[in-house]
Amino acid sequence: MGKAHAFAYRAALAAFPDIPVPRLEMIADVDQGLAAKAAHQYGFQRSSGHWRDLVNDPNVDVVSITTPNTLHREMALAAIAAGKHVHCEKPLSPSLAHSLEMVDAAEKAGVSTQVGFNYIKNPLLKLARDMIAAGELGEITGFRGIHAEDYMHDPESPYSWRIDPVGGPGVIADLGSHIIGMARFLLGPIAEVTADVRTVVASRPVARGAAERKDVLVDDVARILVNFGRGCGGTIEANWVATGRKMQLGFEISGEKGSLVFSQERLNELLFYKAGGDARTSGYVKIEAGPQHVPYGQFCIAGGHQLGFNDLKTIEIGEFLRGIGEGRVSGPDFREAYEIQKVVEAAIAASRSRSWVKIS
Amino acid sequence: MGKAHAFAYRAALAAFPDIPVPRLEMIADVDQGLAAKAAHQYGFQRSSGHWRDLVNDPNVDVVSITTPNTLHREMALAAIAAGKHVHCEKPLSPSLAHSLEMVDAAEKAGVSTQVGFNYIKNPLLKLARDMIAAGELGEITGFRGIHAEDYMHDPESPYSWRIDPVGGPGVIADLGSHIIGMARFLLGPIAEVTADVRTVVASRPVARGAAERKDVLVDDVARILVNFGRGCGGTIEANWVATGRKMQLGFEISGEKGSLVFSQERLNELLFYKAGGDARTSGYVKIEAGPQHVPYGQFCIAGGHQLGFNDLKTIEIGEFLRGIGEGRVSGPDFREAYEIQKVVEAAIAASRSRSWVKIS
Amino acid sequence: MGKAHAFAYRAALAAFPDIPVPRLEMIADVDQGLAAKAAHQYGFQRSSGHWRDLVNDPNVDVVSITTPNTLHREMALAAIAAGKHVHCEKPLSPSLAHSLEMVDAAEKAGVSTQVGFNYIKNPLLKLARDMIAAGELGEITGFRGIHAEDYMHDPESPYSWRIDPVGGPGVIADLGSHIIGMARFLLGPIAEVTADVRTVVASRPVARGAAERKDVLVDDVARILVNFGRGCGGTIEANWVATGRKMQLGFEISGEKGSLVFSQERLNELLFYKAGGDARTSGYVKIEAGPQHVPYGQFCIAGGHQLGFNDLKTIEIGEFLRGIGEGRVSGPDFREAYEIQKVVEAAIAASRSRSWVKIS
Amino acid sequence: MGKAHAFAYRAALAAFPDIPVPRLEMIADVDQGLAAKAAHQYGFQRSSGHWRDLVNDPNVDVVSITTPNTLHREMALAAIAAGKHVHCEKPLSPSLAHSLEMVDAAEKAGVSTQVGFNYIKNPLLKLARDMIAAGELGEITGFRGIHAEDYMHDPESPYSWRIDPVGGPGVIADLGSHIIGMARFLLGPIAEVTADVRTVVASRPVARGAAERKDVLVDDVARILVNFGRGCGGTIEANWVATGRKMQLGFEISGEKGSLVFSQERLNELLFYKAGGDARTSGYVKIEAGPQHVPYGQFCIAGGHQLGFNDLKTIEIGEFLRGIGEGRVSGPDFREAYEIQKVVEAAIAASRSRSWVKIS
Repeated sequence: MGKAHAFAYRAALAAFPDIPVPRLEMIADVDQGLAAKAAHQYGFQRSSGHWRDLVNDPNVDVVSITTPNTLHREMALAAIAAGKHVHCEKPLSPSLAHSLEMVDAAEKAGVSTQVGFNYIKNPLLKLARDMIAAGELGEITGFRGIHAEDYMHDPESPYSWRIDPVGGPGVIADLGSHIIGMARFLLGPIAEVTADVRTVVASRPVARGAAERKDVLVDDVARILVNFGRGCGGTIEANWVATGRKMQLGFEISGEKGSLVFSQERLNELLFYKAGGDARTSGYVKIEAGPQHVPYGQFCIAGGHQLGFNDLKTIEIGEFLRGIGEGRVSGPDFREAYEIQKVVEAAIAASRSRSWVKIS
Repeated sequence: MGKAHAFAYRAALAAFPDIPVPRLEMIADVDQGLAAKAAHQYGFQRSSGHWRDLVNDPNVDVVSITTPNTLHREMALAAIAAGKHVHCEKPLSPSLAHSLEMVDAAEKAGVSTQVGFNYIKNPLLKLARDMIAAGELGEITGFRGIHAEDYMHDPESPYSWRIDPVGGPGVIADLGSHIIGMARFLLGPIAEVTADVRTVVASRPVARGAAERKDVLVDDVARILVNFGRGCGGTIEANWVATGRKMQLGFEISGEKGSLVFSQERLNELLFYKAGGDARTSGYVKIEAGPQHVPYGQFCIAGGHQLGFNDLKTIEIGEFLRGIGEGRVSGPDFREAYEIQKVVEAAIAASRSRSWVKIS
Repeated sequence: MGKAHAFAYRAALAAFPDIPVPRLEMIADVDQGLAAKAAHQYGFQRSSGHWRDLVNDPNVDVVSITTPNTLHREMALAAIAAGKHVHCEKPLSPSLAHSLEMVDAAEKAGVSTQVGFNYIKNPLLKLARDMIAAGELGEITGFRGIHAEDYMHDPESPYSWRIDPVGGPGVIADLGSHIIGMARFLLGPIAEVTADVRTVVASRPVARGAAERKDVLVDDVARILVNFGRGCGGTIEANWVATGRKMQLGFEISGEKGSLVFSQERLNELLFYKAGGDARTSGYVKIEAGPQHVPYGQFCIAGGHQLGFNDLKTIEIGEFLRGIGEGRVSGPDFREAYEIQKVVEAAIAASRSRSWVKIS
Repeated sequence: MGKAHAFAYRAALAAFPDIPVPRLEMIADVDQGLAAKAAHQYGFQRSSGHWRDLVNDPNVDVVSITTPNTLHREMALAAIAAGKHVHCEKPLSPSLAHSLEMVDAAEKAGVSTQVGFNYIKNPLLKLARDMIAAGELGEITGFRGIHAEDYMHDPESPYSWRIDPVGGPGVIADLGSHIIGMARFLLGPIAEVTADVRTVVASRPVARGAAERKDVLVDDVARILVNFGRGCGGTIEANWVATGRKMQLGFEISGEKGSLVFSQERLNELLFYKAGGDARTSGYVKIEAGPQHVPYGQFCIAGGHQLGFNDLKTIEIGEFLRGIGEGRVSGPDFREAYEIQKVVEAAIAASRSRSWVKIS
């Protein structure tokens, strides 16, 4: 993820000439050699083996935190205390209470924050949100959201930091937060949930091929029924044992007048159905991303060229920097990340109590 | 539906030379003129304005019931009493108790029965079931099933018999039963459910364009979390307000070693992912239906020609007749239809009680 | 193919109540036992081991010829002489001159004829033709047509009647005639061609696994540049060594104002692009076949159910019979088949002379 | 295009830590202000209003030429004379003779060259090429290649530099060179061609909405029959009036044992069919780009993330720089661009003479 950030900071100005010019100042890594090497490769001026050097450096205005989840809080709080603007990879913290602490600190300090929900930076998702907001689908009647991948599908994949409960829940936090965030981005707050959040692979070998196994304590699949605050219902699934899927992150949204279908598997396409046209020739329209979908044109001269993952990350960073320059929040900020985490925690609670749980 | 049956009975022998030769004996309709006209068109020898003429006729061995749901029970019980084999369109009856009565009557009489869950007659679904049963996907870890269409999406579509609660629940019975039946066909019994079963369009005009509106009392969308008896979880959605969808009946099944993806929207295709192959060239395989998928070859000489809906109906009827000839159940029979209805009723109960409900 | 016809004649009346009622009178096959068995299976009243019995029978009004190509002429001429209406599978004859003889005989006798170019009976292709004729695509600027399959791709597939030059050319006649016919159906006459028509598999074993091989004298692939009489250009490919393809029969047609894309691989879908709409949401529309596309509704009650190959054959036969009843040509008739064959022959000549060849 | 280069030079080191470290030295533009602005935005140290300043600067080792076609030659020859390595956008020059002059100059000077055929830098195309070279498709039997877009489809689009014949031919050079280059990359030299190269929109307004029109002298569509040196045939189409298409750049390659299908419209997917597997479950495999396809992993951590157009450009530049560092050609170099241009010129000649033309 550090690499994706480096790409993004390097590309942001080329894509967005109107943002404050980023100067790539310093990379910190607990391994000082690695930090130096990365600084060279990614064009940063300095490096350090101590993250506090970075967050306290007077030449640094903006800090990106891409460390393991358990370290986010301490680093973010220190950076905020030093008056830095902070970008943090999700989740803010394994603990909801700690996340709230981080939100409060940032808001009190008045610094800009951003959390890495990069997929919603897709120009086609902005189009989707705008269409929904403008009523082009009519009253929304349903949402079906999925983020399924397969990197944990093999029961012989060894136990790793990724499934250590000290870092928080399993797939519902890792992938679920993306699709929950996307749902909120498109349709607004989720009011209540019930869920089945479960571990599928009960134990894993302690190392590749090892006979010794360790019990898995985090979830592999989360299936959630949701009620949105706006009144419509839906389902959300997060799944990292979905054999075959590499990036099944997407949704189908139905409204009385139309619908939208999206999958990150084909991130430059959005399907749109508009009710009521000429019956002979109506159907789903495959919208292909092009310069008409801002800010696609900052990256490619014409439709068909296509954005990739790193471009979404560049949009994210570009918007963050522009927001800092203009003194406004570009989002999703710490507050939004906290709201997403509340849905995650509510789903886990609902699954445990086998009941519906309201989200305050 | 009567027409689809007529097609199927006419085509069954051409497709399956080994079945008992069907003689198209009689059509009954409350409108005697219509019955006569249909008999002519579909090549039946006689017609009647009284269904009892048909179920009691000594030359009739097999009866197909395609009337409104509320009439199924009386007709089926009379036909069974007369010793006929009975094909009935789903659901057996709006009332679960009445359905059980029909099951018991048929089983006591020893007649063959079949219920019109035609979509599972697709050769590719038999392949899917066989692959799962043979362990080709490994341990199954998840099911995502959907049957969504849009014929009720427009709030100005008038109130009709289809949404009169006297005929039973709404979409969960109409479309939900298909995907529940498909889930059971592929993965076996469902042990418990929780659900959100709701009416989306609160009222509808009493007639097209009328100012007067009538409250809708049946469900438009059902979202269900399921636990299968075999241990895996899943989701099922039934939806008749899914604007744009004409036949989104399908599933994604994940197993530790592979997965299958199907949609009736492309009924001659089945996607299969097998874990563990050559990483360079692995991915979802699009299996196209062909003569290697029995009984496709009874209809088309080569792959690529493709089956249509009426062919599935012909397979259904062909298997029914062959089963009668061989004195065995070809299914899905009344018992299976009753089991499906139990899941429907459990989901409704779960939605009302906002809790999980076990299925006995 | 005989089976497909039997299906079609059985289903035609059920689908089209307005056509003359077909009575299934007689099946002839050189093997009398087989003829009797087929008559039983397909519901024909009589059978014979002599085709002349059939074409001369006074109770027979319509004859379908589904024998090998070399036999078409004699049978068709006899049937025409007996005043029968004749349906013949393509090609009329391996010899262009003989085909013309058949056309002339039929036209002189005033009988109705039809040739089995069933794929153009797809309701979506009628839509395509109507849209083009109505100018919905504007001036047509290009055609790209393909009929590629793979049933001959394996060099170890044995030599067979299919590649015996006595039956006529190879793939250009077998598959090429379908896509040439489709091109003419949609865009009208082809004025000139140049082509590369070639044998890819030089020899094949005389039997599966045999060491002895026989030289292949017919073409495996034909690639054709065409100029339509209307002025636009295009390409046509016929290919039976297209490994992996089971039914890649389709086209892309571009016009100044729009375009259409079709593949028989998904025969219930037609893609339509209309230039000049809202740039944000324009793109290819996936039109799904439904009752709005006549005569789909004669087969299925709603969109999404889908037609299959046999339904196209039923439409073909139904239209043939309706045409006979109404005393008009429903097409494609012998004349049209002859025009298609002229394009086939011109392409072969162009390939041999390595030049452009005009079609009179 | 200058922007795409700037992106690529900025990103190359981040993606490829092993290449010589690029220092972004100077941008030249005839508009000095624009040059200065671009230098700032893209992080170059200096700028100039005179391109000769750049090609003669002692601190510059590598020159990228992204000017109009007519200027390429003079700039490239000057840069080569100054001993610089040169990247040039295609075509080298409107004149084949001038292009050869540039090839010879570069080869004599011993500098590295590259031409911007960026699409073949896709990791999946390298996979395709490797599979073909390794015989995984068996003997190749056919190629169908297309590059179709629609940016000139509207007859009211005004006359512009793009269609001024002084810059060379029309679509056959602009898009055709990409698909010809791709064909050569995958299958090797093209031995002969015949073609239909034509202007579709005869005249265009001199400005948007103007009544005055100007005759179009360059081609809008080119349809080409090709024979590859390896023996197989194929078709190639270049088309910029293919209404609806934004990036239909792709191919279908058939071999005796397998086939590959690719479209730049879904650049992270490659379809592969392998003959001879289990008939029940064989079919086209959708290969999704991932780290197993070098150098995808230099950009994204896992499959499903997806590359975009700018990443392909970065691979191009990265390979160019690595090649310079290692003193070897990474290609496609000036020589390869010249070979592609020879095919373009042969197709034009074939179309004019209405005959086949050999390529020496």
